[in-house]
Amino acid sequence: MERNRQINLAARPVGEPKDSDFQLVETDIPEPGPGEMLLRTIYLSLDPYMRLRMNPVSHMPTFEIGKPLGGATVSVVEKSNLPDYAPGTLVASTNGWTVYALSNGKNPFGRPLAKLEPGRAPLTAPLSLMGMPGLTAYSGLLKIGQPKAGETIVVSGAAGTVGAIVGQIAKLKGCTVIGIAGGPRKCGFVKELGFDAVVDYKAGNLAGDLRAACPKGVDIYFENVGGAVFDAVLPLLNLFARIPVCGHVAEYNAVEHKVGPDKIPALMLAVLGKRLTIRGFVVSDFAADMPAFAQEMAGWLREGKVRYRDEITDGLDNAVRAFQRMLRAENFGKSIIRVSPEPQRA
Amino acid sequence: MERNRQINLAARPVGEPKDSDFQLVETDIPEPGPGEMLLRTIYLSLDPYMRLRMNPVSHMPTFEIGKPLGGATVSVVEKSNLPDYAPGTLVASTNGWTVYALSNGKNPFGRPLAKLEPGRAPLTAPLSLMGMPGLTAYSGLLKIGQPKAGETIVVSGAAGTVGAIVGQIAKLKGCTVIGIAGGPRKCGFVKELGFDAVVDYKAGNLAGDLRAACPKGVDIYFENVGGAVFDAVLPLLNLFARIPVCGHVAEYNAVEHKVGPDKIPALMLAVLGKRLTIRGFVVSDFAADMPAFAQEMAGWLREGKVRYRDEITDGLDNAVRAFQRMLRAENFGKSIIRVSPEPQRA
Repeated sequence: MERNRQINLAARPVGEPKDSDFQLVETDIPEPGPGEMLLRTIYLSLDPYMRLRMNPVSHMPTFEIGKPLGGATVSVVEKSNLPDYAPGTLVASTNGWTVYALSNGKNPFGRPLAKLEPGRAPLTAPLSLMGMPGLTAYSGLLKIGQPKAGETIVVSGAAGTVGAIVGQIAKLKGCTVIGIAGGPRKCGFVKELGFDAVVDYKAGNLAGDLRAACPKGVDIYFENVGGAVFDAVLPLLNLFARIPVCGHVAEYNAVEHKVGPDKIPALMLAVLGKRLTIRGFVVSDFAADMPAFAQEMAGWLREGKVRYRDEITDGLDNAVRAFQRMLRAENFGKSIIRVSPEPQRA
Repeated sequence: MERNRQINLAARPVGEPKDSDFQLVETDIPEPGPGEMLLRTIYLSLDPYMRLRMNPVSHMPTFEIGKPLGGATVSVVEKSNLPDYAPGTLVASTNGWTVYALSNGKNPFGRPLAKLEPGRAPLTAPLSLMGMPGLTAYSGLLKIGQPKAGETIVVSGAAGTVGAIVGQIAKLKGCTVIGIAGGPRKCGFVKELGFDAVVDYKAGNLAGDLRAACPKGVDIYFENVGGAVFDAVLPLLNLFARIPVCGHVAEYNAVEHKVGPDKIPALMLAVLGKRLTIRGFVVSDFAADMPAFAQEMAGWLREGKVRYRDEITDGLDNAVRAFQRMLRAENFGKSIIRVSPEPQRA
């Protein structure tokens, strides 16, 4: 008899997550009660924010030890006591690292789970362009970055899901867009997406290459990465530059303060002297933008103006390894686990 | 025959300004040409931003070596070829560290110099409450801080001109206002101004005392100081806190990076996790607010709702010493040099 399989947080990682921080467990497949349905995961999204939620304290609810890890999923209804969700219906859900899960038909904001029409867009779109990474890029850029035509924007993590979308939207808004990515393959991909220039941070001359790529300075720095990239951008920022702080992947595994010197005084003098705006956000701050985003992004997708690539790994058993790869920036495309095969279309 | 006296920048200070970085020189009193008038300085304002303008590079125009230092003044018309400015007229000007100076009747923004009515307010008001420090406090607090009734604001440099005004306006807006100042005398003054609480950063327990004074956390931190005060405020900031960065006096004399560890990664994680907004500004960014500010502040002054104190030092010869004292935060009140006696009122 088939059983459910899920990956639990076994221990809070210190630094890079180790295999022993996770535990694959088998459980019974749960039976939906009244007002519930049973979902089977097709695709599970792996995202950098998950690393922060593994810490003992985070700005988002932390994952509990001994419980399955959370995450966005594309799922199919297996059994249902909900009249709106017939078996076979595809939904965008947040079932986490598990094959089977119960659902009451609502997302974490209390709204009905969105149904997906197979064939209209790739089934993975709700995990990238049309989902949380897309809204993150859209609102962070437009609300905090406030791009104006002719301005220069630098996007770190440009080959990553959010960074790639930010750059493409900034191009649509008339900006000169410089991406920062690691290695020739990712840099080539960023150029293919239509960025004006891309700087390879692994090429050994980040500060100089970035300066050369930004002859008019930098008006917006979309911060996904932190660390040495932030240091390289800081001297190039123009008066009144904006820095939406979306992520600091370079620090997510950080265990202790970096070795000195302390650069906060220099940073704050730059904030004052250049009248910088630095503002952090997470996607839920902009939940109200979802309808406008969904409409505009769907249009861009239809017209082929914004695109991205998936990196799909087969099998829940491989999720830990794929997650570790992603935190080392070794993935190439949106990191997704194919937990079950896509249903065959009639 | 009387001569003019002025203080020139002799050398760019490294760290704390030394006496030898300044030079008192005598020159001829200039003769106004067509479209000019001769002004005599009564009061000269000393302000922390002047230290930054002594550096080789700054976000404001730097002072030139061998030229008199700049600064806001209250002056009287001695001779005039300008029909609008009769001899004896009092004006708010920017003549700098000099007894006599020529003027074309315009301020640096190209607008006519404001005439002052003796007796309506203290003649020094254009250098503090009604002038640049007042507008700095007003716009930085209202435009960037965006205070809402019931919120908690922490003001560093609370006994300083800008800080004292920020706190009083925040009280008028219904906030709980915590000041940070150094020593019992300054702390007592801050309490007299109506702050809800004051923390003495010299008492040896800044982080603990501040935490105790802010049981509901901190929604706005008005940053005048930097350094250890910033470090103490950071852990207390609430979600979506705003940090108007007005000054970083603790760093103005800084020669090199502080000894580590580098706290930028921790800062940026806080920016992300708490969705902080950090925004630098200088008063000229808000020049357009001047009319609204002047009207509202004049009303508060008349009603006794906002007040401050001057620390007046007699004689241009003592300006360097007073400036050095101010940078060490040894002044108590707005630092002003009485260059000439106030004209006797008829």
